[in-house]
Amino acid sequence: MSHNTFGHLFRFTTWGESHGPALGCVVDGCPPNIEVSEAEVQSFLDKRKPGQSKFTTQRREADAVRILSGTMEQEDGRILTTGTPISMIIENTDQRSKDYGDIKSRYRPGHADFSYDAKYGIRDYRGGGRSSARETAARVAAGAIARKVIAGVTVRGALVQMGPHKVDRARWDWDEVNNNPFFCPDPVAAEEWATYLDGVRKAGSSVGAVIEVVAEGVLAGWGAPVYGKLDQDIASAFMSINAVKGVEIGNGFEAATLSGEDNADEIRMRNDGPRFLSNKAGGVLGGISSGQPVVARFAVKPTSSILTPRKSITAEGEEVDVMTKGRHDPCVGIRAVPIGEAMMAIVLADHMLRHRGQNGWIDNVS
Amino acid sequence: MSHNTFGHLFRFTTWGESHGPALGCVVDGCPPNIEVSEAEVQSFLDKRKPGQSKFTTQRREADAVRILSGTMEQEDGRILTTGTPISMIIENTDQRSKDYGDIKSRYRPGHADFSYDAKYGIRDYRGGGRSSARETAARVAAGAIARKVIAGVTVRGALVQMGPHKVDRARWDWDEVNNNPFFCPDPVAAEEWATYLDGVRKAGSSVGAVIEVVAEGVLAGWGAPVYGKLDQDIASAFMSINAVKGVEIGNGFEAATLSGEDNADEIRMRNDGPRFLSNKAGGVLGGISSGQPVVARFAVKPTSSILTPRKSITAEGEEVDVMTKGRHDPCVGIRAVPIGEAMMAIVLADHMLRHRGQNGWIDNVS
Amino acid sequence: MSHNTFGHLFRFTTWGESHGPALGCVVDGCPPNIEVSEAEVQSFLDKRKPGQSKFTTQRREADAVRILSGTMEQEDGRILTTGTPISMIIENTDQRSKDYGDIKSRYRPGHADFSYDAKYGIRDYRGGGRSSARETAARVAAGAIARKVIAGVTVRGALVQMGPHKVDRARWDWDEVNNNPFFCPDPVAAEEWATYLDGVRKAGSSVGAVIEVVAEGVLAGWGAPVYGKLDQDIASAFMSINAVKGVEIGNGFEAATLSGEDNADEIRMRNDGPRFLSNKAGGVLGGISSGQPVVARFAVKPTSSILTPRKSITAEGEEVDVMTKGRHDPCVGIRAVPIGEAMMAIVLADHMLRHRGQNGWIDNVS
Amino acid sequence: MSHNTFGHLFRFTTWGESHGPALGCVVDGCPPNIEVSEAEVQSFLDKRKPGQSKFTTQRREADAVRILSGTMEQEDGRILTTGTPISMIIENTDQRSKDYGDIKSRYRPGHADFSYDAKYGIRDYRGGGRSSARETAARVAAGAIARKVIAGVTVRGALVQMGPHKVDRARWDWDEVNNNPFFCPDPVAAEEWATYLDGVRKAGSSVGAVIEVVAEGVLAGWGAPVYGKLDQDIASAFMSINAVKGVEIGNGFEAATLSGEDNADEIRMRNDGPRFLSNKAGGVLGGISSGQPVVARFAVKPTSSILTPRKSITAEGEEVDVMTKGRHDPCVGIRAVPIGEAMMAIVLADHMLRHRGQNGWIDNVS
Repeated sequence: MSHNTFGHLFRFTTWGESHGPALGCVVDGCPPNIEVSEAEVQSFLDKRKPGQSKFTTQRREADAVRILSGTMEQEDGRILTTGTPISMIIENTDQRSKDYGDIKSRYRPGHADFSYDAKYGIRDYRGGGRSSARETAARVAAGAIARKVIAGVTVRGALVQMGPHKVDRARWDWDEVNNNPFFCPDPVAAEEWATYLDGVRKAGSSVGAVIEVVAEGVLAGWGAPVYGKLDQDIASAFMSINAVKGVEIGNGFEAATLSGEDNADEIRMRNDGPRFLSNKAGGVLGGISSGQPVVARFAVKPTSSILTPRKSITAEGEEVDVMTKGRHDPCVGIRAVPIGEAMMAIVLADHMLRHRGQNGWIDNVS
Repeated sequence: MSHNTFGHLFRFTTWGESHGPALGCVVDGCPPNIEVSEAEVQSFLDKRKPGQSKFTTQRREADAVRILSGTMEQEDGRILTTGTPISMIIENTDQRSKDYGDIKSRYRPGHADFSYDAKYGIRDYRGGGRSSARETAARVAAGAIARKVIAGVTVRGALVQMGPHKVDRARWDWDEVNNNPFFCPDPVAAEEWATYLDGVRKAGSSVGAVIEVVAEGVLAGWGAPVYGKLDQDIASAFMSINAVKGVEIGNGFEAATLSGEDNADEIRMRNDGPRFLSNKAGGVLGGISSGQPVVARFAVKPTSSILTPRKSITAEGEEVDVMTKGRHDPCVGIRAVPIGEAMMAIVLADHMLRHRGQNGWIDNVS
Repeated sequence: MSHNTFGHLFRFTTWGESHGPALGCVVDGCPPNIEVSEAEVQSFLDKRKPGQSKFTTQRREADAVRILSGTMEQEDGRILTTGTPISMIIENTDQRSKDYGDIKSRYRPGHADFSYDAKYGIRDYRGGGRSSARETAARVAAGAIARKVIAGVTVRGALVQMGPHKVDRARWDWDEVNNNPFFCPDPVAAEEWATYLDGVRKAGSSVGAVIEVVAEGVLAGWGAPVYGKLDQDIASAFMSINAVKGVEIGNGFEAATLSGEDNADEIRMRNDGPRFLSNKAGGVLGGISSGQPVVARFAVKPTSSILTPRKSITAEGEEVDVMTKGRHDPCVGIRAVPIGEAMMAIVLADHMLRHRGQNGWIDNVS
Repeated sequence: MSHNTFGHLFRFTTWGESHGPALGCVVDGCPPNIEVSEAEVQSFLDKRKPGQSKFTTQRREADAVRILSGTMEQEDGRILTTGTPISMIIENTDQRSKDYGDIKSRYRPGHADFSYDAKYGIRDYRGGGRSSARETAARVAAGAIARKVIAGVTVRGALVQMGPHKVDRARWDWDEVNNNPFFCPDPVAAEEWATYLDGVRKAGSSVGAVIEVVAEGVLAGWGAPVYGKLDQDIASAFMSINAVKGVEIGNGFEAATLSGEDNADEIRMRNDGPRFLSNKAGGVLGGISSGQPVVARFAVKPTSSILTPRKSITAEGEEVDVMTKGRHDPCVGIRAVPIGEAMMAIVLADHMLRHRGQNGWIDNVS
């Protein structure tokens, strides 16, 4: 069962609530003899960390990770994985003590309050409990380990649309992604977004976004028919992220509008082997990687926590208006970029090991 | 591992190649004492069956299903499930004997030929082998069983876009879906599509499509955080279908463009309980059903088999042009409608049982 | 969920009832490019086939296997696996038409009649339905494929105890195993057993047995802590066989009686590497193979179908006496030998692939 | 994959090494609204805790458990599960700082040193690392949660054999189990064992044992054919415990020696329903519970850590003698009693939920 676990050979299980003492994950199946360190994992957590600009929640969390098992320091000082489960823990430090009376009884529209109560008949309402996006910190930690498993593969993400505003792909520059608070690859769009999102934020409103994740260096042959397709697992991984409403591989929904002629990725030979002349497929054919970059996108809805009152009910069935004061991201899509990268890395690591298991494929990675 | 198996408590495993002697599936975890019959399963297979109009492949397959295990006739003549695995088999009857020399050596662009060879170093090239959409017949058979598990839930699908042409939702009529060869809910669009697709077909070209699947009657509480989300499993199920490039829940990618105010599904009380005033979420909140209709869509790329030559290579690395003569669907999206319905039913059946297992939820279904 | 599926990377799912039209299995995860043939699978089925001597049931089943998918004939005539699921089917031919009225209503002591009804509220009573040992034919077929995956490993089984009568290990000769109808490695014991079991059979009684399975050629490193232990999976595999009541690894229960000094397997260096001076561990240390032969045993209870009446009840709660006429094995342990071999091969194949997946271990097998 | 996870609907994942900072587990799938507390979990850990008598290792560990997630205090002070993962952590406090130079290079006979190195090429040698029985503390914590899921079922264990010395079943008294340091149900045997084990301990030797676990109150119908058998999962659970070499259900290996007549559990009707006249089956028929007590045993080998030198080699292939000084259990079987209880409770909880999921069985437990 996959309720709080993702993956097969490379797999991880997360635990923790928004306002509990801590959250964390257990990464299982990581190959041995891979060099990892808390500092390295921390560097990815820092990308997702709240409070880094005025455009993300002002909740202050150090998100300091500790590795509790599965690694061992060698005589030369390197810390290597041992093949046993890697447990990582992040303490919650900014669980602001406040009265949750309001949230406790009122179902916030767009949040999981209503459906959790319907399912469990009990709910940790503090900060959304288990449904809080704080859980994604554990994903980013697991993703940092996954990246080491697929050494040789580069996984990068970018925000390609904020509300109705898309980047201009002609201006795409990966180096720009870390030069603005939006992980935006288009410096012109980034400036425009700053103004736009500031208005959204001041209005107490929120806006959705689209994230693109690209994995370069994936060899041909990862993935599997028929229910272990690489793109299927990417879709599953992205859709598991809070607030995601859509997932695309390659040209995605645009493929519906094309003819077979226009949609074909033709192939020619080059000195170093086959070369695809386009990548409408997004690097996946029949669920198996083709050796092209794996390209996928996901759509994030606007944060449901807004200042404008919305109609709702209480657990007791009383009609109420709900508005959410306090610390919230006007565009949760921004912090979804490192999360999407992490999930992509995790899916690829799992499929690399699965492929090696069934097919005996060898590389010099691990 | 999920390579050829889908689901957890309600699960099924498929097997078979396009031009082998047969294909089939094993459905495991179906509750006992549910009435099923070959005729009932057959009725759903008939919806997916090729050769029913000039708009689908002219391959002639009876797609006649046999149930080999897991059911037992009672003294009153009813055939009931016994709780043991249900094996279903469909013989291939129209494996046209021909020379596959061409396909054997040439990688058809958009097909899985290249990636299968990269993965396995061997490939059943006859009709696409395992990567053929014939595998989906087994899904439809499994879906017919799943529908009986979720008695009380109505699962219906429709083609909502063919190439660039969308239906007019104001004209949506579920009764129209079976009145045209496209599963189109809009009779006006259906007529326009007939002319449009006839031109595509005659040109030896192909076109993509978008399918929408709606499940009504899903109680609140099915699904699970964090990696067992209902919408996550729907995304996985849809993306596992051949040629699918994108998946959406509720308003999907459109959610990215909205403000939090516009995206909220407000709630009021009615005599019979809570009533949502809109369904932008598509019936899923935090990965758990809300009691609203579950609404999801997927985009299918145009058939890669077209008459126009495309550049490609052979397995030996020789540059060639590839064109595909013969029997093919100009719009594979049409026959994807019953497949999408089947996968939705399967996901819901699995989650109903999982919810009942963990939470003890009771209904009068089984 | 593992209700009718066993294994992870190498896995198989079985289906079918004793008196249904057929039974079979789907083997998933078999590596590609392995030569298999129906004849080869058949040769293992023939070892398990009933009616080969007066000491096994006189039910006449050809147990003829057909491979329906997952393999492909090459130009040189070899039939190779393609990496896709291998579906195998065995038709039931001797479902003697008779009145099952008796069995239908009466719970046979020692059989699963009572517990199936308690679980499912419905039961295919004909020949035991799903609980019949006919299911094990599918295991033997899957085991034949598994043996090809672990080429280089020899898996052999023998009956080491019939009722209270044990073999003399000083006389152990693997060549004798196929020279008698008991798979007995001790020719003297085999003769004694013939007389003994003939008496049991004529009395309409039955007797239990112990089977030993030995796998030679297993490299060090297969298996995994903590819940994926090689011996744990062997125990699970053996205990899943009908009528099994106990499982041992290495010296098993005898280990409880020993001191740490006597139980230690000491190690010395030989020219070709480490050499263990004894094998009390049975080839497994900490759940991981040590490179020594893997040695395991399981105990089979006496057939519950006997001529002497036993007290029981009907489904309606009426007290009755039950006796079983007809075709039954006086010692089901005999035919359990090829089944035990098959399960051992399956566990090893799964762990070989899992080890290769996580650890990148390479051999020249596949 | 099951490398560090056990169970399906009720499942848990453990992590941690003997001499790392902490160990723990994540329990997933626990139903909501069950009252649990750290104190309750602690009470079971205290039974397994080392250093409670001179007969167990003198390592001093508080084994203090903290629950980090998955529960929530209610207004009435009760702490209830919420249906989300329960993370529990136990800090290691007595990782005696010493020179591990010896163990690091020498393979201790009977330990997993050799096989871990063969598998991973790296090993946390401090106190056995992941292969240490300290991992079982996490099992006991998970088992404490499982007990709450199967409220109404009583799970009790006892040591029934120490070395060659068995209890006299005529003197069996459950109340005696906690009156001696051996969990021995026979007060006479307990006294004899005290003298016996004291001699073993002083000699720096060790001895094996057999543990019996009995679950009363299990309703008929839990378990599943064919690879989800209740006794199969018990065998798997017990064999996963460190040092276990054999597992039995009901009369176990003795069944091999009996005739069908003697092995039958006859049934009569009583006022409150069917009554079995004996329980040779150990409460399981065809893999499904019969409503009788579930009775299982496992054999534990003698501790491999002894004072007498044994022949071995180093990782570099040098022949050495190995002896183990320091703190060790002369009979690890003693502390295996609460571990066996925990694993039985976990298996039963998992199967209760699986049965409820597939079959809709209802009780008033949760």
